[in-house]
Amino acid sequence: MNFRVPRGTVDLMPGEVEKWQYIEEKAREWCRRYHFSEVRTPLFEQTELFRRGVGETTDIVEKEMYTFEDRGGRSLTLRPEGTAGVVRSFVEKKVYGDPQPTKWYYIGPMYRYERPQAGRQRQFHQFGVEVFGTEDPLTDAEVIDLGFQFYRSLGLDGVQVELNSVGCHRCRPLFREKLVAYLTPRREELCKDCQSRMERNPMRILDCKNETCQAITAEAPRMVDHLCDDCESHFAAVKKGLDELQVPFVLNTRLVRGLDYYTQTAFEYIVEGVSGSLGGGGRYNGLVQDVGGPDMPGIGFGIGLERVLLALELQEVELPLSIEVDCFLATIGEEAQQRSLSLLQALRQAGCSVERDALGRKMKGQLKAADRMNARLVAILGDEELQNNQVVVKELATGVQETIQLDKLVEYVRDKRMHG
Amino acid sequence: MNFRVPRGTVDLMPGEVEKWQYIEEKAREWCRRYHFSEVRTPLFEQTELFRRGVGETTDIVEKEMYTFEDRGGRSLTLRPEGTAGVVRSFVEKKVYGDPQPTKWYYIGPMYRYERPQAGRQRQFHQFGVEVFGTEDPLTDAEVIDLGFQFYRSLGLDGVQVELNSVGCHRCRPLFREKLVAYLTPRREELCKDCQSRMERNPMRILDCKNETCQAITAEAPRMVDHLCDDCESHFAAVKKGLDELQVPFVLNTRLVRGLDYYTQTAFEYIVEGVSGSLGGGGRYNGLVQDVGGPDMPGIGFGIGLERVLLALELQEVELPLSIEVDCFLATIGEEAQQRSLSLLQALRQAGCSVERDALGRKMKGQLKAADRMNARLVAILGDEELQNNQVVVKELATGVQETIQLDKLVEYVRDKRMHG
Repeated sequence: MNFRVPRGTVDLMPGEVEKWQYIEEKAREWCRRYHFSEVRTPLFEQTELFRRGVGETTDIVEKEMYTFEDRGGRSLTLRPEGTAGVVRSFVEKKVYGDPQPTKWYYIGPMYRYERPQAGRQRQFHQFGVEVFGTEDPLTDAEVIDLGFQFYRSLGLDGVQVELNSVGCHRCRPLFREKLVAYLTPRREELCKDCQSRMERNPMRILDCKNETCQAITAEAPRMVDHLCDDCESHFAAVKKGLDELQVPFVLNTRLVRGLDYYTQTAFEYIVEGVSGSLGGGGRYNGLVQDVGGPDMPGIGFGIGLERVLLALELQEVELPLSIEVDCFLATIGEEAQQRSLSLLQALRQAGCSVERDALGRKMKGQLKAADRMNARLVAILGDEELQNNQVVVKELATGVQETIQLDKLVEYVRDKRMHG
Repeated sequence: MNFRVPRGTVDLMPGEVEKWQYIEEKAREWCRRYHFSEVRTPLFEQTELFRRGVGETTDIVEKEMYTFEDRGGRSLTLRPEGTAGVVRSFVEKKVYGDPQPTKWYYIGPMYRYERPQAGRQRQFHQFGVEVFGTEDPLTDAEVIDLGFQFYRSLGLDGVQVELNSVGCHRCRPLFREKLVAYLTPRREELCKDCQSRMERNPMRILDCKNETCQAITAEAPRMVDHLCDDCESHFAAVKKGLDELQVPFVLNTRLVRGLDYYTQTAFEYIVEGVSGSLGGGGRYNGLVQDVGGPDMPGIGFGIGLERVLLALELQEVELPLSIEVDCFLATIGEEAQQRSLSLLQALRQAGCSVERDALGRKMKGQLKAADRMNARLVAILGDEELQNNQVVVKELATGVQETIQLDKLVEYVRDKRMHG
């Protein structure tokens, strides 16, 4: 039987996985600087949480969830996004009782049953942040800035923010009525999906990719023209904050995001040459309450790491990855081989990455292996050297070779590691 | 509705999650030193892979798997352990055709439907390594040493290795016959489970925890006395390697491990005061072939991170965690607040962890917040300071306060961060 990786998932192998390590470390480092702490929720939750937290009318909940019963008959779902679980933990652990704001981030796999394509997998990975407990519009700007700094530090060029306000529970219903009134006479011209959206979620007609729908909505009322005073001044302050931070943004009045829970600020990161967004987010001032907590505001983003890697590839960004073997310890004879174990152990305890031959190869084969793994140094230990307490060390790049005392080997390799 | 974390899973919150970050970083660091590369396989696989790779007669496959159908009707299972998926990727990607050995590690969540208890969760986490493509017994010793160094570097005391050889496809069947012949007359005295093990997997009777079973098997034939010449000399070389590495080990002839695929070397890490093992592993020279690859040897271990944390707790080890805010920027007035955004951004770009007030608090409340998050410095920016291009900085530990030029703030905070 030939086993294959499940459809829509990939193995991240050495050569590729280092890029993931690199971007995840960057994400963690920026979170540290912005004073966000990591939180890890389970990879599955009660199914009902996502119905409630992500929204019944979303594509995710309607079509894309991995839902199953466990052996105890509970309906569980592999998390399709990160926010619902994080909000659940915020509520369940009563973190809302602590001094606010709460600033959290997460990194990890998510699951959606979609048609796999470049940069879209069924197991995909998100880096996300959430801030609970403040309505402060400058926090919106800071959150957007954090994502922007993350992208830029990876070497991505021309990242831009698309920004919108989707209003709140006061002004959005009024706008929705206006929108439906505008669209109703042209209902038959809309695509099938949008016709059904008319009842369930007319806002989403605004971001339909169908050309006819787009032509129709081009002249439709805009949410930003129908914000209540609170939302209006919040939105102005967010924009002023982004100006202060020199984060480049453009207004996109079609931006409503796929999830139901957003209020006020909605944003996406885009970059030239990559279709679709690199990530996005927004405010969700009702979500904590929807999930059973008090009325407490929140804002966050989710960034798809597959999308980021795709963008890096398209822009031909070389990440500064270092995969290095500091020293390959080649041995001649059984005694030297046995002894090499503790030498390698000492080198490893000193922080060096070291390797040896595990296939009983002759010297030539060992040197070839050292070369292949791009070792900085080769140390050669034969019975004769062992008797004299010596070892031959050779720098592969220069070919320079010298004989040193065996008990100086750790110092020697560590010094080369530190100072090249 | 009150949503709760699914039974047998936990949320890792700030305060706890830093310990996880710390031990994972240690694992990665030791893998770098031992020249292992990370590999990441999906969190679910075809169910059949685990039946084949873990073994039909194991508790895992019989009772503990999270198995479900996806929307395309495929039977998938959340991985109950790490090795099967890694071997599948090794075979599928034809990595066996590359120069050997292949040295991989993985860290991540695993899933078993078990009764939750201290240090045992349904979603649990393992750090594991695998070496493919060498039968070299010194590699067994190096793998065991890697795990040992990992535990020791965390500050765990008295970690010991329990070691056994479970033989190979040549000598084990002969031993199994001897064992069954010895047990058959006393069959009725064995526990129910062991009676059923008599047919399916009599080796596992050796590690039954039932006292009667233990009394019976105390005098049973021992695998180590029935090894073929190859397994005998392999085992001797492993022990000699461990001596060279000064890894403390004891022979445990009852050690057979729960999985079917082990051959020759089997080992577990134990520590005083913690019941059960902290992790373990062994050789699996037939597994690559079982999963559809060529006949190629392998060895590895899996370490349960919940178990490690439990042991650290029981031994009252304090991990050297640092959660630090380098500077809290307190502001008076709207203009200072607005301006603080770009100051914070500059500090963050310089690598500092900085924070501000996002709740519109008065100065006293801001200082209290800074104190609560244990900030090293507080910088105070009011309209007056802003006009003079100055800022007041105060070290919270000493109370020492000075006024500096605003454009020197980044340098000042970074300097304090670096040199205290």
